[in-house]
Amino acid sequence: MKKIILGVLLLLFAGVAQAQHITIARQGHFSVGGQTIQRLGKYDNSKFVGWAEQEETGQSYRADHAFVDFQIPADSKKLPLVYVHGYGGSGVCWQMTPDGREGFATLMLRRGWSSYVVDLPGRGRAGRTSATTTAKPVADEMFWFDIWRIGVWPNFNEGVQFPKDSTSLSQFFREMTPDLSNHQLDVPALGALSERIGDHILVTHSAGGFSGWMSAMQNSEVKGVASYEPGGFVFPEDEVPERIDGLTGGVAGIAVSMEQFKRLTEIPIILYFGDYIPETPSKNLGDENWRVRLQMARKFVEAINRHGGNATLVELPKIGIYGNTHFLMQDLNNAELADLLDDWLLKSKLN
Amino acid sequence: MKKIILGVLLLLFAGVAQAQHITIARQGHFSVGGQTIQRLGKYDNSKFVGWAEQEETGQSYRADHAFVDFQIPADSKKLPLVYVHGYGGSGVCWQMTPDGREGFATLMLRRGWSSYVVDLPGRGRAGRTSATTTAKPVADEMFWFDIWRIGVWPNFNEGVQFPKDSTSLSQFFREMTPDLSNHQLDVPALGALSERIGDHILVTHSAGGFSGWMSAMQNSEVKGVASYEPGGFVFPEDEVPERIDGLTGGVAGIAVSMEQFKRLTEIPIILYFGDYIPETPSKNLGDENWRVRLQMARKFVEAINRHGGNATLVELPKIGIYGNTHFLMQDLNNAELADLLDDWLLKSKLN
Repeated sequence: MKKIILGVLLLLFAGVAQAQHITIARQGHFSVGGQTIQRLGKYDNSKFVGWAEQEETGQSYRADHAFVDFQIPADSKKLPLVYVHGYGGSGVCWQMTPDGREGFATLMLRRGWSSYVVDLPGRGRAGRTSATTTAKPVADEMFWFDIWRIGVWPNFNEGVQFPKDSTSLSQFFREMTPDLSNHQLDVPALGALSERIGDHILVTHSAGGFSGWMSAMQNSEVKGVASYEPGGFVFPEDEVPERIDGLTGGVAGIAVSMEQFKRLTEIPIILYFGDYIPETPSKNLGDENWRVRLQMARKFVEAINRHGGNATLVELPKIGIYGNTHFLMQDLNNAELADLLDDWLLKSKLN
Repeated sequence: MKKIILGVLLLLFAGVAQAQHITIARQGHFSVGGQTIQRLGKYDNSKFVGWAEQEETGQSYRADHAFVDFQIPADSKKLPLVYVHGYGGSGVCWQMTPDGREGFATLMLRRGWSSYVVDLPGRGRAGRTSATTTAKPVADEMFWFDIWRIGVWPNFNEGVQFPKDSTSLSQFFREMTPDLSNHQLDVPALGALSERIGDHILVTHSAGGFSGWMSAMQNSEVKGVASYEPGGFVFPEDEVPERIDGLTGGVAGIAVSMEQFKRLTEIPIILYFGDYIPETPSKNLGDENWRVRLQMARKFVEAINRHGGNATLVELPKIGIYGNTHFLMQDLNNAELADLLDDWLLKSKLN
């Protein structure tokens, strides 16, 4: 009897210890979407045709797909999260942090949410495209340090949720990767992903935000959208607000049909914006790039709700969460942001 | 008492059910190696300098690193496996199969082996390099179908361990991705990885095989090497065999100092080659590319063992395993190959 109780206790203890681990039922990678280019002519197996582009080799070339890295935890929530990256990088921004803490997708896995992390066409593992593109070593890191509100180079913003050691900064910049696409492939790729995996929730970032709104309007499989600092916004064609000007080019609303827009009123939507975004014009690139976008985001959320939708704009400093950069999902408080998202998903009955 | 026994049985059953899952203690991504390019001049925060390459922007650019995707299972073996891909693709070849079965790294995770899957510089997520490189849509898939011994296009090899549906073939080809590097960065990146993670076992493929030998000779952290159809081989400078000619260019041994070569005699090494490799010259590209390499592999293994080493060459058809292409790790029998590797690692006391 004592032995049996000891056995039960040991097994229970093993269960508690395992709770710190992530239990994965399935994981893998696959591509979605894209096209197949077929050259004219007849392929000749006996000779090597060389590497230069040739017209009549009779060979094919698959291109313009996205790549997807997925993990399904044991006892996962029903709806998976599809992570869409923004400009300049790949899906890796959702899977790591500059200082080695867990990536956002892993934090959400621990909360029971399956992940589908996308490398959009032309980036990361989705490198084969139909475009001819030249990648050049254009030094731009100080510019992005500013634009992404880590600080005003070489100074970090006061209280910033970004690690200040040089190794972390190096890891962060090395997440950037060229875009080898013709820049019009993101939305079709998200459509192909919808077809493959069915119902899901989009979690988008920055330039990926616009592709997310487009996918939600086109694919009934999108059951909700959480967007971290989206860069672009859609409006019903008769209700596009005036362009908002700013030092980095400002932002204009994009017109879509009322029928399309209405689709965004049928699903729960949340937008998160971080810290250091001023209300009035500034001389700083990072201030300016997000001041205009936050203002347009407010109009976007108003428009959705005016038409009967359920959109929420969370300006993090207004709820007492300070120091977030544009890369909120990697910031030092990303576990707190994962809790916020988890709460919203459950409250919105998206599990 | 009955309730307690029932409780124990239920917990034991839960334990068995969980055995089908993978229990991950830690996972993430990081970059290793590379350089930082620093442009002259002083960075001006107030103006946008544009995208064209400019000399005096005062900005920096991190480049030439590798990217690493790691997973550490609970109760992992002590030494992790570092997966090095070959020409034309990224680390994704170790993480998926064309038909959606589990990738090789996941199969090995299930056997307790931690994985570090590398995207070598210029490929996949490691896209920023110091080179200026143009990616073009050069149609080449039939060529690779042949070279990688899936068959002689459009026919599959008889009994081939490759799924014959068009979706799988498409997934397979879409794993290819451009190389944006200057082609001399792989070995330094593996050195930087050795420094970061310490002792490990290399699992290499194809062109990655040569970088693996170089890393093993330069980094004492490499405690063993398993190489799937390596494309290149090193020999002591006075013992380089004659070049072996063939239809796709043949293969020459690469000379290294005896002191360097000796390092390969101090660690367990295994090489695996698949099916459809003839002994005598052929008119087929795939036959020819691997006929010469298998012959050179035999000389390489002989050289290591002649100098007191412990190298094994496994020609799979000779042990009754048939149908393997050049992408053995993805083939339909990859779970059987994972068992073979697991057995060898344990027998070689590399756990």
